[in-house]
Amino acid sequence: MAVYTDVSDEEIAGFIAGYDVGALLSYKGIAEGVENTNYVVHTQDGQFILTLYEKRVEENDLPFFLGLMEHLAERGISCPTPLHGRDGKVLRRLSGRPAALIGFLEGMWVRRPSPEHCRAVGAALARMHLAGEGFGISRANALSVSGWRGIFESTGARADDVMPGLAQEMVAELDALEAGWPQDLPQGIVHADLFPDNVFFLGGELSGLIDFYFACNDALAYDLAICLNAWCFEPDLAFNITKARALMTGYTGVRAVSEAETAALPMLARGAAMRFLVTRLYDWLNQPEGALVSPKDPLDYLRRLRFHRGVRSAAEYGLDVKAIA
Amino acid sequence: MAVYTDVSDEEIAGFIAGYDVGALLSYKGIAEGVENTNYVVHTQDGQFILTLYEKRVEENDLPFFLGLMEHLAERGISCPTPLHGRDGKVLRRLSGRPAALIGFLEGMWVRRPSPEHCRAVGAALARMHLAGEGFGISRANALSVSGWRGIFESTGARADDVMPGLAQEMVAELDALEAGWPQDLPQGIVHADLFPDNVFFLGGELSGLIDFYFACNDALAYDLAICLNAWCFEPDLAFNITKARALMTGYTGVRAVSEAETAALPMLARGAAMRFLVTRLYDWLNQPEGALVSPKDPLDYLRRLRFHRGVRSAAEYGLDVKAIA
Repeated sequence: MAVYTDVSDEEIAGFIAGYDVGALLSYKGIAEGVENTNYVVHTQDGQFILTLYEKRVEENDLPFFLGLMEHLAERGISCPTPLHGRDGKVLRRLSGRPAALIGFLEGMWVRRPSPEHCRAVGAALARMHLAGEGFGISRANALSVSGWRGIFESTGARADDVMPGLAQEMVAELDALEAGWPQDLPQGIVHADLFPDNVFFLGGELSGLIDFYFACNDALAYDLAICLNAWCFEPDLAFNITKARALMTGYTGVRAVSEAETAALPMLARGAAMRFLVTRLYDWLNQPEGALVSPKDPLDYLRRLRFHRGVRSAAEYGLDVKAIA
Repeated sequence: MAVYTDVSDEEIAGFIAGYDVGALLSYKGIAEGVENTNYVVHTQDGQFILTLYEKRVEENDLPFFLGLMEHLAERGISCPTPLHGRDGKVLRRLSGRPAALIGFLEGMWVRRPSPEHCRAVGAALARMHLAGEGFGISRANALSVSGWRGIFESTGARADDVMPGLAQEMVAELDALEAGWPQDLPQGIVHADLFPDNVFFLGGELSGLIDFYFACNDALAYDLAICLNAWCFEPDLAFNITKARALMTGYTGVRAVSEAETAALPMLARGAAMRFLVTRLYDWLNQPEGALVSPKDPLDYLRRLRFHRGVRSAAEYGLDVKAIA
């Protein structure tokens, strides 16, 4: 939770004048968002989110992210949509940072997801996968299997400071993932970070998806594996098969998964756990002085990873294998 | 900038249902406010500020603060106003903290105040002083002259870690302030913290005053002295007499200051500088582990204090002594 760039009243008024949204009435920095600085902005025309992209976001990726949000919105996906300035541009600069003014999406994220929430998320994920077809820009997934070992190795020998034996376990797991990583699965645009805080609900209904700043091209089933990790473990890290079944049912109701995707799911879920284990481990061991954001415990993802290692087939996730195309 | 209490979607929906404001649509934690947790809340009826009062605020003082905002608003002062719940109450509980839902005030605080801003602040301060008359609750100023030495002494010998000689200079100053502190000046409700971030402007006009959580009963001219410190020094801590004159003119145009108040102003301004010097010194030397808020440099206030020590009469603040009643 952080505002990394403090914007002055004069700077923001000048920025807002570049859009056809009426005069600026107020702006407040939001204490959410780890990567970027966000303000809630009120103008005579309504409310918006102003995002300043901080150093962790590659500036070259911004046309992909902003373009994707527009592409998805045009295809009926409820997500924040960047506004075009009077000059037609969606990407501008403010206080030395790339910045965009983005539509405000009502809704709240759910702290205690129910199976019904999981079902709605599965369906929304599948709809997003279908809507992503035809998007003209592509972006490789830097945080996929080929990237994990490099991040892990940059933490050096310090993994064992977090838990004795962690380094050895991670090396063995990286070996297994690199050797067995599924190839040739159906590809497309994946969200790649669809945690509960990135899904809004309103009156029990899913009202939209947010935060597309990890979106990229990858196997669609990998996104489902990320959601399994994000939505279907309880606070004590017990796996909740009822939630997993609801997630899977929601997804397959919209987009059929292939036999190959089904077979790959346990390995994809191990990989999805490794992806967050390595980045959280890195962040845990590299906390900047005076950091505004507390890192999350990496070992939560080790426990998920171990669970998936014991899974033999997608049926254990509640996926109805008989229903597979 | 901080959210100290994370409120769940279920808790906040239940809280909002206690008011006649329509259904909850969204809420976002604000990265402003040092003392309390604030959320911007949208409901079907509009936008509000939800404040959870954290440990630095005395719960017993909340009826004073909330009642004062209502009292002032009823008398035409533009300030945030707490809403009454369906049960008639303005003070409730949320996530284990005292909490209130408060009207949203449009406007922005000015990073670089001009003399015109200072004039508007002076006038608004005087209007607030007049509107405060008749408020039925009183609250002593714990951060006035009788409180400073105790805070200073609780920092012990460590003042000199901040600057060699600081402790000795502060002791001498406390002696002088305690011996010469003005008595019998006109009393009333003072804001006591009217810094630029607590005054909103919209289209060049002052749109309201916020953050009454240091308000108390004290000498009205002491509030003016706090504003002199808060508004009339440049970033390099040079005193700007043009701004001071504008502040004074704005104030005296609404409320006449007496001869005694005029004569007391240099001493009140030294005291106002000491008030922030001691609390900032305390905060500087007592930074909690993992603090979300960076403390401000106490020595900024030592420099202001030294300036006021050299002032011989209120004329040096731009107060037109001939015009005094």
